[in-house]
Amino acid sequence: MIESVSNIQVRYAETDMMGIVYHANYLPWLEIGRTELLRENGLPYKEIEARGVMLPVLEVNVKYKRPAKYDDTVSIHTRISEKPFLKIKIDYELKRGDELLATATTLHAFMNSKGVPVKPPTFFKEALAKHY
Amino acid sequence: MIESVSNIQVRYAETDMMGIVYHANYLPWLEIGRTELLRENGLPYKEIEARGVMLPVLEVNVKYKRPAKYDDTVSIHTRISEKPFLKIKIDYELKRGDELLATATTLHAFMNSKGVPVKPPTFFKEALAKHY
Amino acid sequence: MIESVSNIQVRYAETDMMGIVYHANYLPWLEIGRTELLRENGLPYKEIEARGVMLPVLEVNVKYKRPAKYDDTVSIHTRISEKPFLKIKIDYELKRGDELLATATTLHAFMNSKGVPVKPPTFFKEALAKHY
Amino acid sequence: MIESVSNIQVRYAETDMMGIVYHANYLPWLEIGRTELLRENGLPYKEIEARGVMLPVLEVNVKYKRPAKYDDTVSIHTRISEKPFLKIKIDYELKRGDELLATATTLHAFMNSKGVPVKPPTFFKEALAKHY
Repeated sequence: MIESVSNIQVRYAETDMMGIVYHANYLPWLEIGRTELLRENGLPYKEIEARGVMLPVLEVNVKYKRPAKYDDTVSIHTRISEKPFLKIKIDYELKRGDELLATATTLHAFMNSKGVPVKPPTFFKEALAKHY
Repeated sequence: MIESVSNIQVRYAETDMMGIVYHANYLPWLEIGRTELLRENGLPYKEIEARGVMLPVLEVNVKYKRPAKYDDTVSIHTRISEKPFLKIKIDYELKRGDELLATATTLHAFMNSKGVPVKPPTFFKEALAKHY
Repeated sequence: MIESVSNIQVRYAETDMMGIVYHANYLPWLEIGRTELLRENGLPYKEIEARGVMLPVLEVNVKYKRPAKYDDTVSIHTRISEKPFLKIKIDYELKRGDELLATATTLHAFMNSKGVPVKPPTFFKEALAKHY
Repeated sequence: MIESVSNIQVRYAETDMMGIVYHANYLPWLEIGRTELLRENGLPYKEIEARGVMLPVLEVNVKYKRPAKYDDTVSIHTRISEKPFLKIKIDYELKRGDELLATATTLHAFMNSKGVPVKPPTFFKEALAKHY
């Protein structure tokens, strides 16, 4: 299992007229969580793409529990529980202090620069291997 | 069952450096789909909020099949299959011509302006009643 | 002089907790205005980029007069007054009915796919030539 | 003169298909810069709004010099040079290391919660008074 925690501070631009964070704006936070997790394991996403591998999102699921608000500090708890095979599944918990704001899951494929699905590249598997 | 079809044209602002639409940017399209469905049934969302009722998103699920691209015309097929009780479940298909780009589901609660969950208001149920 | 009018309907996603459209969200509307103007003159922006020419934004200026609100229909009045030479200057008026919401100007360069500034290509100049 | 420096890291969501940051996405960074400047001077923007005062954007001007890219660390140098009277003018420089990416200016009014322009409130003037 691989875990990581990142923090973001809610931007005014991320709110809507309901006075809370617009629900779509949680998705870039998930991306911050997973890129930090990968970076901490020697896999900066910029380098992954530079090596010709992309990780497009196949599925996203978010359950909203409590609204995030302007200027909140939100911690993004990111976890990869299963060894990636053809796809990679990532779980998230978004919290304000101890309070759970949302849970989420994303599913990703490995794809080359021509858009063709590929197996996880060796450098990717090796970087994560110590955790399994 | 209630159905509606809306169309959007992909904006440059909605793309990312992968050359396709950034996955979070599908969520505002879903909102366009459901607000059009409600409007066609006599329920402009602006009036729903003016009557003190909000429909916050509790859950969102998206399955991405094929990438939407800049300048594509995307049709949003929106459907409410089940009579809303405490929650309202909405299904979506996003298409480019006959090609399925994504499927999605959102789940909403009814909430008053103080953030307290409420039952679907009478005016809301009556507007949709003819379909059930 | 070349003119064009486009219309957009304000999305919930474009509002902020002040209850009005977040100021940054006017900029994609300007882009809709200028791409429609170019399209109406035989220059779909997608084809311009396909021919290896990009029109990056060098400057943007917006004066906000009255707030746009959720569900408003906003008309984007776009105008190219001066024949493009090395740069292209575009003016905009955003209106809700007769009411002026904002005025704006953008300045663009012509750039090839390597990021090098170039002169306006012949196909571009010819498409607009009838207006000068 | 009042100055402040903030840092942001470019999000994937902020890029577009040109491979660089979409120009509209610089505007929320300016907001981060000015809210940090105000916070450092005892004026968290959330508290300003809680006291019934808003600072809507009247004008924004951005000059783009070099493109910001995914994962860049961008420093936002924010400055208030003139004592606010009825309006407040804020200047910005966006840098990647020593490299200037963009300069910008925003102009703001003071407005009460009913949308009526007001003078800068006393608590606001006092918080900044030591700098003039």
